[in-house]
Amino acid sequence: MTWEANQKNINTRILTLGEQYWQRMQGDVPSLFDRQYWQGQILDWIMDDESFKVDAFRFVDVLPALHSTPAIASHVQDYLLKSDRKLPVLVRSALSMASGGIAAPIATRAIRANVTEMARRFICQSDSKKAVAVFKKLADQNLTFTADILGEATSSDSEAERYVQKYLNLIELLATAAEKWPDNPLLHLSASGPLPKANISVKISALDPYLDAADHNGSVARLKEKLLPLLRHARTHNVFINFDLEQWSCHNITYDLFEAVVLHQDLVDWPHIGLVVQSYLKSSENDCSRLLALSKRRGTPFTVRLVKGAYWDYEVVHARQNGFSCPVYTNKGTTDASYEHLTRLLIENHELISPAIASHNLRSIVHALVAAEYKSLPKNSIELQMLYGMAEPQRLTLAKDGYRVRVYAPIGELLPGMAYLVRRLLENTSNSGFLRQSYHEGVSISSMLAPPAAGQDLINVSASPPTDLTSPFTNVSLLDFTLQEVRYRFTQALSSTGEKLPFEVPVVIDGKTIHTTKQKNHASPNDPSLVVAQTSQASISDVNEALESAVKIFPAWRDTPLTYRAELLEKLAHRLEADRFELAVLQCYEVGKPWREADADVAEAIDFCRYYARQAIKELGPVKQGDMAGEENILHYEGRGPCVIIAPWNFPLAILCGMTTAALVAGNSVLIKPATASTAIAYQFYQRLLEAGFPQNVVHFLPGPGDEIGNFLVEHPDICQIAFTGSKEVGLSIIEKSGKTIAGQAQVKQVVCEMGGKNAVIIDDDADLDAALKDVMHSAFGYAGQKCSACSRIILVGEIYHAFLPRLLDACKSLPMGMATEPGCRLGPVIDQTAHKRLESLLANPPDGSKIHFSGEAPSSGFFIAPTVFEVIEPTNALFQQEFFGPILTIIRARDFQTALDMANSTEFALTGGVYSRSPRNMASARQQFKVGNLYINRGCTGAIVGRQPFGGFGMSGIGTKAGGPGYLLHFANPRCITENTMRSGFTPDFHM
Amino acid sequence: MTWEANQKNINTRILTLGEQYWQRMQGDVPSLFDRQYWQGQILDWIMDDESFKVDAFRFVDVLPALHSTPAIASHVQDYLLKSDRKLPVLVRSALSMASGGIAAPIATRAIRANVTEMARRFICQSDSKKAVAVFKKLADQNLTFTADILGEATSSDSEAERYVQKYLNLIELLATAAEKWPDNPLLHLSASGPLPKANISVKISALDPYLDAADHNGSVARLKEKLLPLLRHARTHNVFINFDLEQWSCHNITYDLFEAVVLHQDLVDWPHIGLVVQSYLKSSENDCSRLLALSKRRGTPFTVRLVKGAYWDYEVVHARQNGFSCPVYTNKGTTDASYEHLTRLLIENHELISPAIASHNLRSIVHALVAAEYKSLPKNSIELQMLYGMAEPQRLTLAKDGYRVRVYAPIGELLPGMAYLVRRLLENTSNSGFLRQSYHEGVSISSMLAPPAAGQDLINVSASPPTDLTSPFTNVSLLDFTLQEVRYRFTQALSSTGEKLPFEVPVVIDGKTIHTTKQKNHASPNDPSLVVAQTSQASISDVNEALESAVKIFPAWRDTPLTYRAELLEKLAHRLEADRFELAVLQCYEVGKPWREADADVAEAIDFCRYYARQAIKELGPVKQGDMAGEENILHYEGRGPCVIIAPWNFPLAILCGMTTAALVAGNSVLIKPATASTAIAYQFYQRLLEAGFPQNVVHFLPGPGDEIGNFLVEHPDICQIAFTGSKEVGLSIIEKSGKTIAGQAQVKQVVCEMGGKNAVIIDDDADLDAALKDVMHSAFGYAGQKCSACSRIILVGEIYHAFLPRLLDACKSLPMGMATEPGCRLGPVIDQTAHKRLESLLANPPDGSKIHFSGEAPSSGFFIAPTVFEVIEPTNALFQQEFFGPILTIIRARDFQTALDMANSTEFALTGGVYSRSPRNMASARQQFKVGNLYINRGCTGAIVGRQPFGGFGMSGIGTKAGGPGYLLHFANPRCITENTMRSGFTPDFHM
Repeated sequence: MTWEANQKNINTRILTLGEQYWQRMQGDVPSLFDRQYWQGQILDWIMDDESFKVDAFRFVDVLPALHSTPAIASHVQDYLLKSDRKLPVLVRSALSMASGGIAAPIATRAIRANVTEMARRFICQSDSKKAVAVFKKLADQNLTFTADILGEATSSDSEAERYVQKYLNLIELLATAAEKWPDNPLLHLSASGPLPKANISVKISALDPYLDAADHNGSVARLKEKLLPLLRHARTHNVFINFDLEQWSCHNITYDLFEAVVLHQDLVDWPHIGLVVQSYLKSSENDCSRLLALSKRRGTPFTVRLVKGAYWDYEVVHARQNGFSCPVYTNKGTTDASYEHLTRLLIENHELISPAIASHNLRSIVHALVAAEYKSLPKNSIELQMLYGMAEPQRLTLAKDGYRVRVYAPIGELLPGMAYLVRRLLENTSNSGFLRQSYHEGVSISSMLAPPAAGQDLINVSASPPTDLTSPFTNVSLLDFTLQEVRYRFTQALSSTGEKLPFEVPVVIDGKTIHTTKQKNHASPNDPSLVVAQTSQASISDVNEALESAVKIFPAWRDTPLTYRAELLEKLAHRLEADRFELAVLQCYEVGKPWREADADVAEAIDFCRYYARQAIKELGPVKQGDMAGEENILHYEGRGPCVIIAPWNFPLAILCGMTTAALVAGNSVLIKPATASTAIAYQFYQRLLEAGFPQNVVHFLPGPGDEIGNFLVEHPDICQIAFTGSKEVGLSIIEKSGKTIAGQAQVKQVVCEMGGKNAVIIDDDADLDAALKDVMHSAFGYAGQKCSACSRIILVGEIYHAFLPRLLDACKSLPMGMATEPGCRLGPVIDQTAHKRLESLLANPPDGSKIHFSGEAPSSGFFIAPTVFEVIEPTNALFQQEFFGPILTIIRARDFQTALDMANSTEFALTGGVYSRSPRNMASARQQFKVGNLYINRGCTGAIVGRQPFGGFGMSGIGTKAGGPGYLLHFANPRCITENTMRSGFTPDFHM
Repeated sequence: MTWEANQKNINTRILTLGEQYWQRMQGDVPSLFDRQYWQGQILDWIMDDESFKVDAFRFVDVLPALHSTPAIASHVQDYLLKSDRKLPVLVRSALSMASGGIAAPIATRAIRANVTEMARRFICQSDSKKAVAVFKKLADQNLTFTADILGEATSSDSEAERYVQKYLNLIELLATAAEKWPDNPLLHLSASGPLPKANISVKISALDPYLDAADHNGSVARLKEKLLPLLRHARTHNVFINFDLEQWSCHNITYDLFEAVVLHQDLVDWPHIGLVVQSYLKSSENDCSRLLALSKRRGTPFTVRLVKGAYWDYEVVHARQNGFSCPVYTNKGTTDASYEHLTRLLIENHELISPAIASHNLRSIVHALVAAEYKSLPKNSIELQMLYGMAEPQRLTLAKDGYRVRVYAPIGELLPGMAYLVRRLLENTSNSGFLRQSYHEGVSISSMLAPPAAGQDLINVSASPPTDLTSPFTNVSLLDFTLQEVRYRFTQALSSTGEKLPFEVPVVIDGKTIHTTKQKNHASPNDPSLVVAQTSQASISDVNEALESAVKIFPAWRDTPLTYRAELLEKLAHRLEADRFELAVLQCYEVGKPWREADADVAEAIDFCRYYARQAIKELGPVKQGDMAGEENILHYEGRGPCVIIAPWNFPLAILCGMTTAALVAGNSVLIKPATASTAIAYQFYQRLLEAGFPQNVVHFLPGPGDEIGNFLVEHPDICQIAFTGSKEVGLSIIEKSGKTIAGQAQVKQVVCEMGGKNAVIIDDDADLDAALKDVMHSAFGYAGQKCSACSRIILVGEIYHAFLPRLLDACKSLPMGMATEPGCRLGPVIDQTAHKRLESLLANPPDGSKIHFSGEAPSSGFFIAPTVFEVIEPTNALFQQEFFGPILTIIRARDFQTALDMANSTEFALTGGVYSRSPRNMASARQQFKVGNLYINRGCTGAIVGRQPFGGFGMSGIGTKAGGPGYLLHFANPRCITENTMRSGFTPDFHM
């Protein structure tokens, strides 16, 4: 009789067995939930007040970074003592003591001690040697363990190297200790044979700072090289190694890596290795099948730890923010049902795989016991795993019953362990979790032992592409490089485009393709010997012809229905999306943009089309004004006239597309003057404009020298509008020239102008340095710092300098440089020889008052500049004031947060800025005082997303327009208000009396 | 026993008597409702389909103006055959015939004939002689009459004169005819004695083109002079004269006029005169009491016709649009109850007043009969009145019963009669009307005879002033000059301000009042010998001092809470409203603005404050962007820096206030450079700014020479923003100067710039000329044409020229000119000697290719220019292209509507425009093609209202900003987007799983 057919009896058995265990555990509460202790009380409040939970966890998160009484006091005040919060009087007065006054030092010490105590429930010891004693104690309780090293995020090769060393040391330490531990068949003998007494869980993300799904093969290869010696070492010392499974983005790399090492000749017959299956993954059943097949192929079994998964918030947010299909189930019942299904699958295949059931949920555990029982397997054919500090009554009862229970025991400092603590607290307090339900909510044991039911996903994450204008705007998904097919298509596109180079780029007027005798070649920044584009150069007479056409067609285009123009944008979006690989890889060649950045540029272009299409209808279309009987007032917007688009090369598709589509949808005819360094991509875009249906006399394509035809256009009386993105110098000169109204001009010229930036990131003394370092590296060196939004200044508050600078320099040292066509490239070349020379000369002759902390070696072929870190003392230093547009970062120290804000605001630019802080009051100050167009709190300062972070600055950075945001289109349009007096002969349709 | 105490019995009596009448009338349907005729059928559809009703009435309204088959055909198509309209197949096919094709001439003739037939039901004859025969026929049916002359609106003295002549002729004609009519005691003998056989109803609005509540005394005096001879003539010829009562705006004038004439020695003992009480007026009970008192005082009774009132739509809309307290009840039951109450009041006082009960409502009529019966009065103590063509069964039955029934019989052409026809159709089809309910809806007679119940007003019209920012924006009420108290306060304010002149106007920096030695005097345009302002002149060093202060305070002001700044605007609005009389009368003196225009300017200023206060919170305040888990994106707007306001003199308070408050509420510090010709008003405004609480270092007051300090400010690097309203030349030069960015400048300068206009009104060949003429006179000559929105071109389509031009010239001839301080002034002086000279020289040397149709005599004291009408042939003529800013109107003929649109669009300006047309397709073309910032259909092209008609143009008229509209404030602000990554340590508050 199958399990399914016997369902009812089995559930009765699970209920009976579960209730027995529950009875036996009665009176024994997990220590965290014990209300005799303050943690138990705090936990109660947390579970009763969602906002207090958020603040309390955030306070716990930042606490280890607070090193003084005033620091703790202000955070207590900001997080826990919010004036509108209801707190028990005793708690408020206790906390108030900590927030200032004479008792503060004592009170804050008490708080720190208490939180530390809480952390100690989950983190077994701060160092491995002390941990050995804990493992011994566990063994005395008939419990075994797996040791985990808590860690900071790894951001450099040297940090990764330190982790490898830590694992090697731990192997030796535990092996040595284990020799002295007595044999215990309950712990050290499984159904398939003896087990090592020592057991370590390894996180592969700690071993490589540049793990990247896009660079899948590179990542697997590098990790394999690092892991093989470690695994051989473990085998030699008879230590079991389990690979932990982290975020979904590492999943495929981890699985491929595992496959590679377990099949390696040195390890293929070694059973003491394991991997994890996360049942919340939609891929989990495939994952199991794959592992079963692997075991068969290998011939030697290995262990699979079955968990539910601990990165749920992160996975959902990450998938949403990138538009990826969500990798996890968002229905708790589905995850639980999947868990049980996989439990049985593993148990059925216990000869191929040793199942380790890791859960604190009594139903999940008992289900596994019954499943094994149903197969008449001995108790030691499965292993039960639980986390250190959790569900203590269960683990003891199960051990007493003769099951092997392994405790997952983290070792490490409080500081790096806080993220772990927060995850544990979340798990304990989760609304749908077993622990909360049983120990806090008092849900009946029988209902908690009921079989889980799979259900609909509660949160719809994966966005299907919008099909018409009535759908709300959604960002297009980024390429999901975790998918092999995506990597394959990208690689294929790279080679097929590579074969077609150089591209011939013509002038196009009225759809008429003109190949001029005057041509200009553009070389790939990756490799100057590779010509990417041969571009015809428009003459003044070409420009005049285009202008004449644009003037002539303008009225008809202006008067086309708005929805028609918006639909063309929608069609263009589809065209760009269909060709996204082609459009991205061309950027790798033409402007030296790495994979992910090139993809993001294409995605932004698509987003602009869809966003402006919808905004056009919303903002430009008719809106009733006032509410008055006897009259009807309608405000709408119309095109202004011929508009010239002067586009930059650094976002060669996105910005060009954004400015062009905004001008077009608003009803203007357009002349595109593409950047000289990115004409090939511009022409690809232009062709798709026509294919999408934009009339050929409405938009013209005029590559050529900016100082010649750009100026001619800007000064021409027939031009009504200029949209420009580029340097401050050119921008200001365009504004000045357009200010002059010439006789015969139809409109006062409007200029939409985005200029430079000198963007600062402030790192507060309580910042999360893992996050800050990762993001700053990306904001400063992504696309070689060639973004107007790039981070080029870091302001370090107080003593954080000492913690941050070494890690920053280490990270720079190991930053992978190379051709942008390579997936592993983190720092590509700068755009051309001029830029290269300019930056080299800066490095050769840095301004006085500065110190170079680091400047690496750059590859000699291609226009490479190594990442460079300067430090200055004075904020007036040129390195702190001028835009360099390259991988050049200047740091400065600030006495306090206010000084940091003043320094940040001290330039003429006001584009982007970032703040890393966990101090609510400092975050509030930044919101108020950090005067930039786009401020990011605890996030990098590049990568504004259309519709979410309307982009643009003021000061000398721009005139206050917000690309990809509300109001942008209005800058391209004239408003008209049409009023009709609806009363005739004393009769109005307003009333029906 | 009182009426009230006997209520139940009386109602039973009314029900019984009413049912008897109803029985006796059965089988007899008012002809209009007879479904045997097509009118009956059309009426059915109209009552079943509200949108068809609107279109059908509009078609009827325009029909008399259509003189050709194609014209009728296109209107049939546009109004009646809308594609989405459900029409009976037969109707659609009949109408389709008329809309084009071979049968169109016959079909359109048929339509015209049918509508004419319908009109003939209500208009007894086209001329008085023919009408006499109709009156004879009525007499044969035992019905008597009052004759009414249908008329166009009177727009000139000569038209008014023609009406007087028509009445005189009618008196003689009817008197002569009456001699031959046999005596009929039923018709010619009332309880108080014999009645004239002839009876005429007079509309006083026909007798004076410049009736104006503001000029109450002038209006009454002029009318009295015109009416006395007419009334003497009537008395001599024994013809009864009844004063009709029209819109509420003429009510008080009519009553005062009536009082004046009936007490005149020549008429005091003449009983054959009457007036109307409209029971829908909230004042109706007072009106009755006043008339009773008047009769007592006079000693000779007169007649009062009690009606319900026929201008309901108009009164409600007019009150709403001006913010007046609504003069009429908006609950039908209240009007009916008031009618019955007044019926009894009149009957009780039948010895003082002869009651004429004018109604078609059987309940109202029977109630009157019973009320008279209750007082045991003879039947001829009251008179019943009904309109020609309506309620025929009732009038016959009542006459048969021995009541005197008088038929109100309009005489006149179809064309001027159409408004009358539409009113009758409305009355017949009104949802709550007796006729519709009884003959269309089939409501039971007993329920229609039930006593009316007064109830709540259904439509809330009078707006109470907003008390805080959370209330929605409403326009402040204009001054209601129908109220004596308002006229009194205005006059008082004029004299008290007059006594204070000249005003000393200082420079004010940081609240420090500076009287400079350099002073400039400004004379009143009404009277150059009167100095209105003696103004200190700011020096460059004063300006520098103010700038320094504005730069210094800016960051603090920018960072004040938005709501705080918005509340200051709200306070300012209260201050301005409290002082509205003072602020208006000063404009009469300083800039020569007539009463109503001066009041409108103050009201607009108040509106700007309240509108921008609310818009600031809505548009500048934080708005969430996107909807993404794990991040929070907030967009808001902040001030840009010191802003200079360069204000014009023509809206000396409104525009200054609008620009200043916009800049301030957006968080900018402000330097006011007032117009030289209106410093006194500007200073009044500035003082109220400080009184309202704006800090004295945030806003500075710098009167002085524009070419000196204006330019200095515009070019100064510390100025971030310029708001300017004025001439094209100055505007363009400001734009050019601000385009130049100087080293050290914090922001690229933004310019908000409103420049000139050359605004056209197109008068289509089917236009309502009464409305067009009235509005065009106001748009062209209101404030002497000194508005950027003023109408300075009229484009006459097709043959309308011949009908329109003579009326226009007549209207110009009689336009009352004079000092703006006089309430009767319709055309005041131009601003100063320079303007006066410039315009005089234009009149002396008009451009070639033009013809002066009319240029009147201007008063010699003061800077007066008479209204002038040019005609040109070519639209390229300077008179048709250049802005003159004076009471100069240029007309041109256009072959067709499209040519008219092209001519309208042929200037460099694009500010306002107007179209008078009743052709849906031409109105649609104008909406699409008439390219101006503010287009008005069937409304004058001046007088945009804050919040309802966002104001501003493009081309050389402006840069597309909309004062008093959405988005205006954004031009004064920088956007900032603040993004917080809300995920920390893998935990985000977005989900509660």
